[in-house]
Amino acid sequence: MQLQKGQKLLFIGDSITDCERARPDGEGLFGALGKGYVSLVDAFLQAVYPELGIRVVNMGCSGNNVVHLEERWQEDVLDRKPDWLSIMIGTNDVWRQYDMPFIKESHVYPDRYEATLRALVERTKPHVSQLVLMTPFYLESNKQDAMRSSMDQYGAIVKQVAEETGALFVDTQLAFDAVLKELYAATLAWDRVHPTQAGHVVLARAFLNAVGFDWNKG
Amino acid sequence: MQLQKGQKLLFIGDSITDCERARPDGEGLFGALGKGYVSLVDAFLQAVYPELGIRVVNMGCSGNNVVHLEERWQEDVLDRKPDWLSIMIGTNDVWRQYDMPFIKESHVYPDRYEATLRALVERTKPHVSQLVLMTPFYLESNKQDAMRSSMDQYGAIVKQVAEETGALFVDTQLAFDAVLKELYAATLAWDRVHPTQAGHVVLARAFLNAVGFDWNKG
Amino acid sequence: MQLQKGQKLLFIGDSITDCERARPDGEGLFGALGKGYVSLVDAFLQAVYPELGIRVVNMGCSGNNVVHLEERWQEDVLDRKPDWLSIMIGTNDVWRQYDMPFIKESHVYPDRYEATLRALVERTKPHVSQLVLMTPFYLESNKQDAMRSSMDQYGAIVKQVAEETGALFVDTQLAFDAVLKELYAATLAWDRVHPTQAGHVVLARAFLNAVGFDWNKG
Amino acid sequence: MQLQKGQKLLFIGDSITDCERARPDGEGLFGALGKGYVSLVDAFLQAVYPELGIRVVNMGCSGNNVVHLEERWQEDVLDRKPDWLSIMIGTNDVWRQYDMPFIKESHVYPDRYEATLRALVERTKPHVSQLVLMTPFYLESNKQDAMRSSMDQYGAIVKQVAEETGALFVDTQLAFDAVLKELYAATLAWDRVHPTQAGHVVLARAFLNAVGFDWNKG
Amino acid sequence: MQLQKGQKLLFIGDSITDCERARPDGEGLFGALGKGYVSLVDAFLQAVYPELGIRVVNMGCSGNNVVHLEERWQEDVLDRKPDWLSIMIGTNDVWRQYDMPFIKESHVYPDRYEATLRALVERTKPHVSQLVLMTPFYLESNKQDAMRSSMDQYGAIVKQVAEETGALFVDTQLAFDAVLKELYAATLAWDRVHPTQAGHVVLARAFLNAVGFDWNKG
Amino acid sequence: MQLQKGQKLLFIGDSITDCERARPDGEGLFGALGKGYVSLVDAFLQAVYPELGIRVVNMGCSGNNVVHLEERWQEDVLDRKPDWLSIMIGTNDVWRQYDMPFIKESHVYPDRYEATLRALVERTKPHVSQLVLMTPFYLESNKQDAMRSSMDQYGAIVKQVAEETGALFVDTQLAFDAVLKELYAATLAWDRVHPTQAGHVVLARAFLNAVGFDWNKG
Amino acid sequence: MQLQKGQKLLFIGDSITDCERARPDGEGLFGALGKGYVSLVDAFLQAVYPELGIRVVNMGCSGNNVVHLEERWQEDVLDRKPDWLSIMIGTNDVWRQYDMPFIKESHVYPDRYEATLRALVERTKPHVSQLVLMTPFYLESNKQDAMRSSMDQYGAIVKQVAEETGALFVDTQLAFDAVLKELYAATLAWDRVHPTQAGHVVLARAFLNAVGFDWNKG
Amino acid sequence: MQLQKGQKLLFIGDSITDCERARPDGEGLFGALGKGYVSLVDAFLQAVYPELGIRVVNMGCSGNNVVHLEERWQEDVLDRKPDWLSIMIGTNDVWRQYDMPFIKESHVYPDRYEATLRALVERTKPHVSQLVLMTPFYLESNKQDAMRSSMDQYGAIVKQVAEETGALFVDTQLAFDAVLKELYAATLAWDRVHPTQAGHVVLARAFLNAVGFDWNKG
Repeated sequence: MQLQKGQKLLFIGDSITDCERARPDGEGLFGALGKGYVSLVDAFLQAVYPELGIRVVNMGCSGNNVVHLEERWQEDVLDRKPDWLSIMIGTNDVWRQYDMPFIKESHVYPDRYEATLRALVERTKPHVSQLVLMTPFYLESNKQDAMRSSMDQYGAIVKQVAEETGALFVDTQLAFDAVLKELYAATLAWDRVHPTQAGHVVLARAFLNAVGFDWNKG
Repeated sequence: MQLQKGQKLLFIGDSITDCERARPDGEGLFGALGKGYVSLVDAFLQAVYPELGIRVVNMGCSGNNVVHLEERWQEDVLDRKPDWLSIMIGTNDVWRQYDMPFIKESHVYPDRYEATLRALVERTKPHVSQLVLMTPFYLESNKQDAMRSSMDQYGAIVKQVAEETGALFVDTQLAFDAVLKELYAATLAWDRVHPTQAGHVVLARAFLNAVGFDWNKG
Repeated sequence: MQLQKGQKLLFIGDSITDCERARPDGEGLFGALGKGYVSLVDAFLQAVYPELGIRVVNMGCSGNNVVHLEERWQEDVLDRKPDWLSIMIGTNDVWRQYDMPFIKESHVYPDRYEATLRALVERTKPHVSQLVLMTPFYLESNKQDAMRSSMDQYGAIVKQVAEETGALFVDTQLAFDAVLKELYAATLAWDRVHPTQAGHVVLARAFLNAVGFDWNKG
Repeated sequence: MQLQKGQKLLFIGDSITDCERARPDGEGLFGALGKGYVSLVDAFLQAVYPELGIRVVNMGCSGNNVVHLEERWQEDVLDRKPDWLSIMIGTNDVWRQYDMPFIKESHVYPDRYEATLRALVERTKPHVSQLVLMTPFYLESNKQDAMRSSMDQYGAIVKQVAEETGALFVDTQLAFDAVLKELYAATLAWDRVHPTQAGHVVLARAFLNAVGFDWNKG
Repeated sequence: MQLQKGQKLLFIGDSITDCERARPDGEGLFGALGKGYVSLVDAFLQAVYPELGIRVVNMGCSGNNVVHLEERWQEDVLDRKPDWLSIMIGTNDVWRQYDMPFIKESHVYPDRYEATLRALVERTKPHVSQLVLMTPFYLESNKQDAMRSSMDQYGAIVKQVAEETGALFVDTQLAFDAVLKELYAATLAWDRVHPTQAGHVVLARAFLNAVGFDWNKG
Repeated sequence: MQLQKGQKLLFIGDSITDCERARPDGEGLFGALGKGYVSLVDAFLQAVYPELGIRVVNMGCSGNNVVHLEERWQEDVLDRKPDWLSIMIGTNDVWRQYDMPFIKESHVYPDRYEATLRALVERTKPHVSQLVLMTPFYLESNKQDAMRSSMDQYGAIVKQVAEETGALFVDTQLAFDAVLKELYAATLAWDRVHPTQAGHVVLARAFLNAVGFDWNKG
Repeated sequence: MQLQKGQKLLFIGDSITDCERARPDGEGLFGALGKGYVSLVDAFLQAVYPELGIRVVNMGCSGNNVVHLEERWQEDVLDRKPDWLSIMIGTNDVWRQYDMPFIKESHVYPDRYEATLRALVERTKPHVSQLVLMTPFYLESNKQDAMRSSMDQYGAIVKQVAEETGALFVDTQLAFDAVLKELYAATLAWDRVHPTQAGHVVLARAFLNAVGFDWNKG
Repeated sequence: MQLQKGQKLLFIGDSITDCERARPDGEGLFGALGKGYVSLVDAFLQAVYPELGIRVVNMGCSGNNVVHLEERWQEDVLDRKPDWLSIMIGTNDVWRQYDMPFIKESHVYPDRYEATLRALVERTKPHVSQLVLMTPFYLESNKQDAMRSSMDQYGAIVKQVAEETGALFVDTQLAFDAVLKELYAATLAWDRVHPTQAGHVVLARAFLNAVGFDWNKG
């Protein structure tokens, strides 16, 4: 288990991270961590490793793309001084190209996505113990599907940035693909994007596995 | 134009027909016809053929499959004595197989779908001037997709029933496929099922073309 | 078809244009274009000419008269850099003279209406490919009716400004008069002003006809 | 002043009478008489003739036509044993012919209107001290307008029934026509039917004048 | 009738004047004049003297005392340039002495009341055609009651200021006392202050009588 | 202290007793006893005599008069088998005579009040350990006031019934009169009927004093 | 893993099971399984064992004790024909003895609890493949605390019934005690009863461990 | 009785003081003092000592700890110039250590608590007639419980500050302990912190006893 006693673990991302978290501070009592994978990660850490006292913070914002993250990075990430930072971004960078194709200023194409993500990671690295980069995903099993194909391209960028910067890498698409072999995508999400709790379990599991969580700890 | 002066045209179906129509009677003032293709058909008939005085009624119900239609057929169709009846059903018959795969009593498989639809058509034929059968559709351009493939199978059943019974046939999937060549499915519907107004225009156009509507009427 | 690939088409006007559009930006997902003729124009463009990728924006504001348009012209029209601009204004300029006759500062009389409209058109012309001027209308078939007579006077001003400036002209009153021969005004609008969807189809048809829309395009 | 100490005065009619009255009993504290002419009549009776202790009851129902009145006559009129009964009905009998022309079962044509109204009056006459018949009205000054013309026909029926049965007669259309000489109809009602408080004052005045109310009583 | 064609008549006061008027401008469509005596005055002027085109404005504010009026006098009275101004204030100046006796800074005692009212009247007189001063009132018939006695004292101040400044004077308490001879106060107002519509008719009648309104005008 | 360990004490009455109690059972968690004197009595019993475990039940109903109590006596009183029963009724019996004077069937005059109350008391006496009769009250210090005078008459009836039946008697009017010597009635209640919490303390104190509550118990 | 392909797993219990599940059927789309441990169990089964297609149903009802379960057993358990049934009941049986001590009919004492639970288990055993009995719990680490002590007594009854009937046994209190060694109870639940998501993870883990769930399945 | 005629008594604290008081000013009509012990103190003062005219003000704020009080002290305490000031703070200073143990900046440890409280008391003493210091409390009868033990430590600090500064001291924990001998904590508060009205009576009694309130005053 790589997380250590008393550390602060901050998640940033879009609506899949947000899930109705509290504002302005995404932590505290009364479901402040939202209803998604962040809350599940926190719940498992607290239930299985209560002695570590890991502090989890959710700073996801619905609708965000990587450029939105950049705009609020100082206030929502650096100023909060996390020990661990997990980033999952890219869904909206891609989705807007497919659901609002004519409104081009809402799109973030691969070059800008990569440059912005890499800059954020490099700016943050000196200030944190560990970075986790989670790919965006699309709940479509057909890899020839146009939007799935784009999403895979953005996922590959995340992987490359993780490798270059030494961040932990979580391949959420790979984790979902295992489930999509058995279940049609609509079982997990009508819109292929916002999953049911089963989908959030997939995400939480993938994250916890990456940080060395021991599921059978007594 | 096949619709004649003073006729009553009733639409029955699921949420794509329903679109927040008034209850119990799906006709009258204040948007009683809902916000979908039925209201568009009515609006075009009234705007372009006001002299015909066609009375449009919307009896769609969200969540319905063909078995639900059968349960309310006497009250919601026959008792209302329409001159024309348009049926578009099948989305939920198929969708539940893909989004709730473990709850099998919510599924309507092809045999039952075909038998029930045919029985309804034959029971109704003697009482109406004309029947219109519209296929269900799925906003997915990949014909190898499992749910698209199922939906095409149900569409083929509709076509066959239409041919055997002499009903007018509207291939909504074909109409959407033309648009899907240019636009990714998510532009028309996040869930591949409930379309934007552009999608309802596709449906209304397909219906109106089938009944001989003259778009350039002065 | 005069609209060309990738162009932005902006509509400005009053409540008949607004129809609950999204704010501050009248475009995007989830019915952002409102429930009136603008949304219908967009839906027909997308359904029939998906390959053109026309971007439609609705900047109507309920209650506006031509002076209100002038106040927000820079921000709501020019700064958005449309290729096409369609203006339909005048209802409230006239209506307030008839429903709030004693509150005279709410009235916009013909001189001011004409001067303001012409100034807006001339200020905008250099920046757009094409301008469309739609008349205001009143759903009253009796041309001797005082308010109908006023509205016709404002419509004539629109026509004159269109001719002088080379804008496309849409005579909405003429389009409605054809329907009012068959249907009493109350069928289209209890208040003679805010029409049902049938009335919005009349408006959308008139607009689309003016820009060379081909209704029978395959 | 024809109303006498301790009498109960019941009003029945449609939405113009109803005006959000309390249910099931249209009398009592907290605005139970609604916001229209009935409440004004009551307020003037109480303010000017407090010593008479007239009890006013409002049994109007929005959307009612004369057939609806007949259906609830026993319970809502006879069982309540009023001393005076005032009837104003006919708006919806006519309006539906003009705003829902294709839904013919919602129309009440003159023959049925006259027969039903006369039957109600004759059935009630033995049980009350006095009956007041108020005409329906339409806030349109053009007597050649189709719906105004119809409404005048229904008003003439009311007059004839009043004369034949000895009921007091209140010509509300005549009272409104005096105002419409000075004010355009939209000042009193956007929909020509549901008036502002000024219109309700016209109705209350007409009623009170008919029953001998002394406006200058000390 | 002292009000002349095209004049603007502004009412200012407390909750008895306010009655849910529109904000910020207490005039216009949709019940903007509130539900009290101001709306009744307007309705009678419009119904009986439509040819005069009197413009009525309601600037009452719930909870106000005379000091509150002074604070908003420039903006809410003078800047609106009324031809006629009617003031009814004092209820809260007195009431707080009786319902919040320990919070003394909420009280306005007679000296301050008189000085403030007189200053407002004198400041305004040069700018208007006519001023109307209406007394505050208390719906308690027992003149020895402590709060009634105070209210009578404030009413006497209003009378004196009216006489000294040549304003029209309306004795609302006197008008109510006539009704209170017949009806117990609770019939008009549970709290002795905010009357039913019958009470607002008493106020409107008193006002209209003071300005020479002819109730029997044809 | 007359209440004994484990006894159930039930209060019945009108809105002054009700005070938003839970329904159908006026006892339990989350403020089920309402916000008035009943809740205060319960709170003092629990805070000062926790060892007694007195169970308090509130069965007050807003708007009730003594006839309403009679209608629900079996279900709401007898079936609940209280050890102690406290009755405070009469406000609405009197009030309706003063705020709705023309609707006479809403009035309960002294004869009927007395007969009904006595019958209820006698019917209940065999089934309970002790009965408490609380007078109705009116927050008006002027005993010549018409409604106060009536209320005193009803209070005298309560006293007489209490004496004849051996019930404990609580003179709430007397308790309030002591406060009204110092405070004007509007401080305790704008409507003279529904008191502030200070008024409910007056009621709770009077009740607790009557049952021998020791305020200085350690 | 003891659950087998295609089985139906039904949970019944109180608010800790309920957690805002859908009604009347606690299964389906849109969070129908509620927000507690049942939804977590389902999500883990679907995410990790999608090939099994386990159907999870939540029939918990807030406020229920074992007697309430008995009342709805036929309809909510037996008629739904589950393959697996999990019961967690007892919280309210105990809690009411401590938060509503005077309302004794709301208490379920150990004898009745044991008899009712055993009867339900025995009645159900022939109809299901496997039964799981989960103890109730109390989030209080002090075993001398009165309510904790009671809850342990009820937990012991559950254990005994499980042993006698061969049901799987889940000791939820034991699972929580491990966490309570590190965290004060208020971190998991302000009221010691309704836990945060971390507490529901404790419950879901305990359940899944009991049925042989493999956390490290690929 | 130490409170004297016309004095202002201000309460400051956290949610136990706040109880939905009015904002920004915690005094006046319509329940402005909230629903807790402050309102009870006021009600008893007004009901039993109406001749003193004590003005009670509630400036509690939910969630506050002693540092929050310090931040708003000038505006919410000193500027309001009370004669008496009562402080009850500390619940949240302690509770956050137990319900959000990982968010350490939300904790206020004993040193800071003592220093801040003492500074506030000394800063205020010259400006008021009398200060009352009420301990925080925890509704847990087990003194070995970790949070109870902490709360007792903070209570001891309050006692010491009171003694050193000559403030009146109210030991709320002692008052509650007497009740907790008879009733399990959950009867008074599910969360051990926010009591029922019975708990607020305990607080009000303790306060009133400290200021010499005579419960048996005539």
